[in-house]
Amino acid sequence: MKRILLTGFDPFGGEQSNPSWEVVRRLDGLLIGDSHQIVSARLPCEFVNSLLILDAALRQHQPSIVICLGQASGRADISLERIAINVDDARMPDNAGAQPVDVPVVEGGPAAYFSSLPIKAIAQELHLNGIPASISQTAGTFVCNHVFYGLMHKASELTSIQRAGFIHIPYLPEQAVAHPGAASMSLEMVKTGILKVLESVLKTDKDLRIAGGATH
Amino acid sequence: MKRILLTGFDPFGGEQSNPSWEVVRRLDGLLIGDSHQIVSARLPCEFVNSLLILDAALRQHQPSIVICLGQASGRADISLERIAINVDDARMPDNAGAQPVDVPVVEGGPAAYFSSLPIKAIAQELHLNGIPASISQTAGTFVCNHVFYGLMHKASELTSIQRAGFIHIPYLPEQAVAHPGAASMSLEMVKTGILKVLESVLKTDKDLRIAGGATH
Amino acid sequence: MKRILLTGFDPFGGEQSNPSWEVVRRLDGLLIGDSHQIVSARLPCEFVNSLLILDAALRQHQPSIVICLGQASGRADISLERIAINVDDARMPDNAGAQPVDVPVVEGGPAAYFSSLPIKAIAQELHLNGIPASISQTAGTFVCNHVFYGLMHKASELTSIQRAGFIHIPYLPEQAVAHPGAASMSLEMVKTGILKVLESVLKTDKDLRIAGGATH
Amino acid sequence: MKRILLTGFDPFGGEQSNPSWEVVRRLDGLLIGDSHQIVSARLPCEFVNSLLILDAALRQHQPSIVICLGQASGRADISLERIAINVDDARMPDNAGAQPVDVPVVEGGPAAYFSSLPIKAIAQELHLNGIPASISQTAGTFVCNHVFYGLMHKASELTSIQRAGFIHIPYLPEQAVAHPGAASMSLEMVKTGILKVLESVLKTDKDLRIAGGATH
Repeated sequence: MKRILLTGFDPFGGEQSNPSWEVVRRLDGLLIGDSHQIVSARLPCEFVNSLLILDAALRQHQPSIVICLGQASGRADISLERIAINVDDARMPDNAGAQPVDVPVVEGGPAAYFSSLPIKAIAQELHLNGIPASISQTAGTFVCNHVFYGLMHKASELTSIQRAGFIHIPYLPEQAVAHPGAASMSLEMVKTGILKVLESVLKTDKDLRIAGGATH
Repeated sequence: MKRILLTGFDPFGGEQSNPSWEVVRRLDGLLIGDSHQIVSARLPCEFVNSLLILDAALRQHQPSIVICLGQASGRADISLERIAINVDDARMPDNAGAQPVDVPVVEGGPAAYFSSLPIKAIAQELHLNGIPASISQTAGTFVCNHVFYGLMHKASELTSIQRAGFIHIPYLPEQAVAHPGAASMSLEMVKTGILKVLESVLKTDKDLRIAGGATH
Repeated sequence: MKRILLTGFDPFGGEQSNPSWEVVRRLDGLLIGDSHQIVSARLPCEFVNSLLILDAALRQHQPSIVICLGQASGRADISLERIAINVDDARMPDNAGAQPVDVPVVEGGPAAYFSSLPIKAIAQELHLNGIPASISQTAGTFVCNHVFYGLMHKASELTSIQRAGFIHIPYLPEQAVAHPGAASMSLEMVKTGILKVLESVLKTDKDLRIAGGATH
Repeated sequence: MKRILLTGFDPFGGEQSNPSWEVVRRLDGLLIGDSHQIVSARLPCEFVNSLLILDAALRQHQPSIVICLGQASGRADISLERIAINVDDARMPDNAGAQPVDVPVVEGGPAAYFSSLPIKAIAQELHLNGIPASISQTAGTFVCNHVFYGLMHKASELTSIQRAGFIHIPYLPEQAVAHPGAASMSLEMVKTGILKVLESVLKTDKDLRIAGGATH
């Protein structure tokens, strides 16, 4: 049985919960097809410790697929990140009080890594299932991008990891109550969406070429 | 048994469905408490005919509560309209091809009517149930505002109508798929939300005073 | 010589200046054509005192045209308000610490007043001069709408006032510096814009019928 | 005399002008301090030809500083791009009708290049001069990013280029007239802004560490 590692984050920014962990913990242990099983891990929303915990989970579970999830306040859909960049630039402190500015995630690492998920095929799969989704050209420069870059850097060294990437998800509706005008998505739909993502990953050898870019 | 009239619209703007009708038709016939029953009516997205059909439904069902619903592309929450204004100003033709510009809804009618729903109590009830909701200061100048104004004008004449108002709801997720970046809300949550609205209407004599305004 | 009264507000919301007063004070005394002269007045950003000062200015100057201006954080263009509504609903205290919620501007007044400026002709004039402008369906429920409603109520009693209305303007660029992502407009362009507004008011007897509405 | 190469684009997307070329052509020939002179070049909004023309200009002028400018519809400030990524993904055809999807800008090139402009010092300089500006984490995946990546790739080979980067600017006001709600910036302010950018580049050896990131 191969393993799929899904990670979610601790709450941050004054929230009581983090939708990324709420969805990921509900998928823990689930079988996908007859060959893969999900294992879920919870990451602190901290620059340093997030990658330590991620590395430990990678060693423990030896997954062939890794998808890290994070909350994107204000975004309205399941947001498939295209690229991780080698910089931390925090506008607010992380949960440990650290606020790195213009520091590389990995000293001497390449400027960026592209996701190895078939993001265009995934977007199409989600759309066919009535689930809003889009390609994102930036995962920001906070802990989400930090984990994404750290993951892709590790994946570039570990041949056991076949596919890796990062997905941002909206607020849950109960969170959006406190953020007037902010978009949200139900937990049920995010959960269904992530299962569709995994189906798409497993059945796609070569990503589709469907336009998903941004003019700027 | 008293009646609650809920209305939804036909699809417009190239959409295949209209979430307002999708939710309203699923509530048709439902009992609210042991004193009220929902009747649902479908309005065309047309300036002239929408009010003709609404008037017919008011005569037929003699409701004590009337809430008209409409789709608000791009809005993220259940949007409780505060005021209907006496003007039609259409940027695009309605479903019958009419595009009135700067014409009153009711010749000689007052400039505006305030909703007689307890919109602040409703917003609080929705929030307590984890459902995003807000007060809106404008229902626009298209068919939704037209129906809202026409309803309130009629309600000002009919003592049988105790409460009347208008609620805008977001796209359904399957609609948002075709509108990148647009917010959406699941049909299940809108349905639950409208039931909470009705509970709140029935139990509220005098609306709460909770800030819900806009700076501009 | 007839008088045109322009008003601007004191700074509020932590700002150092208010673009509405910055532009209005620079136009004080200016002749428009050979028949009209501008007088400018500064209003406090306070529910009670704003209308007291406005009333005093109306008595003192006996203007035939009155346009009140206010700052609309986040809006990108010169925003021609269509309608003033009879409610104060403040999300934050005004500069005197008052925060009315769901209180009428004028007890017993009508629900709303439409602007008597030719807003469509003005929008067209601004566009022809390369100045971004649009019709707004709501002036909010804070001090701007309060002043707008109070002005229109007074204008409904004073036959000396031939045209009256309210215009929202964007941040100045130097303000937008402190509000990342917020739109702004240069003082020079706003000033030119207001002069074009006045030209348009003076030369328009009957407003144009050009679509300027909102779907919701 | 050292040379500073500034580039702007042809109009695209149905526009009559492109603010990037409008500003750049007005700066052509200008001396900055007593050591540098601006030369301006106009690039077609085409994937293939834009880089051919840029390369020719680099060979002809041998600049020590290169800044390419582009229009960013909807953005409200001078947007200092942090990173160029090695992918073209066009949602619409360029001016030559080409619409590459998921094709690298430079086959075999690194995933991304960081700007070598001191973007944080520049942002501070602009802010001190009352000019809205911010750091952007993505230049998109259209011709702007294509030129930015191509420039940085070339700069990685040419030791003569000391600083290179890309800046997005808003619509001009006269363009925004046709895009209701879209932000704009006056040509005068953009021109002043670009001169401040150049002053900042010339006087900054090591960029400042000021937070300028994004949470996602």
